[in-house]
Amino acid sequence: MELDFRKLDGLVPAVVQDFSSGEVLMLGFMNAEALEATQASGEVTFYSRSRQRLWKKGERSGHRLRVRELRVDCDADAVLARVEALGPGVCHEGYRSCFYRRLEADGSAAMAEERTFDPREVYEEGKQP
Amino acid sequence: MELDFRKLDGLVPAVVQDFSSGEVLMLGFMNAEALEATQASGEVTFYSRSRQRLWKKGERSGHRLRVRELRVDCDADAVLARVEALGPGVCHEGYRSCFYRRLEADGSAAMAEERTFDPREVYEEGKQP
Repeated sequence: MELDFRKLDGLVPAVVQDFSSGEVLMLGFMNAEALEATQASGEVTFYSRSRQRLWKKGERSGHRLRVRELRVDCDADAVLARVEALGPGVCHEGYRSCFYRRLEADGSAAMAEERTFDPREVYEEGKQP
Repeated sequence: MELDFRKLDGLVPAVVQDFSSGEVLMLGFMNAEALEATQASGEVTFYSRSRQRLWKKGERSGHRLRVRELRVDCDADAVLARVEALGPGVCHEGYRSCFYRRLEADGSAAMAEERTFDPREVYEEGKQP
């Protein structure tokens, strides 16, 4: 089937979910090439909007995402990658999930998870996993 | 905290997850106003890109999404709404989740879920939940 990459200038959002726990780990974007690379390698590859190139998740950290199942939504404009996440977490801030903060009713953010690793030991500049 | 709506022309992707089962139900987009409406009403409100207006999920079908928790990601450019989903499913095609198809290695799509309701009985024109 053809995905609809037209709505976001060649990209579709890609939700990453832990296959075992069901936890939502992160959200990235894929272009057609990134989706092909994901399917060919069996590991999640995004298109990095900031760096304007393919970005294989874990290429620096080793925290790669092995695809167990890819899903597509009704409008074919979003992807769900159900994965086995290698390593202690996907987030460059040192958490299992990038969604580690809760938005409170007053607009503030509260920590909802504990750090699972020290990002300084994984990322030299502490950025861009 | 301030969300970063600049990367997608005023929008952030919003992943909807069933609070109890962990199932990813759908992905929509929110602008600042939709996020405010979601927080104020306690029910998920998107910004519809096709209709260019706020879209309270379930406004026609009654299949509303009661927010149990809102999460924000590390870059503050994506939202995760963990919800209690009212009704038999969120998808205008008649499924619990919009991600009811699996993308196979050969590029084809396979049904991964069973229909939970008849969309013709819920949506008059069978579109736009």
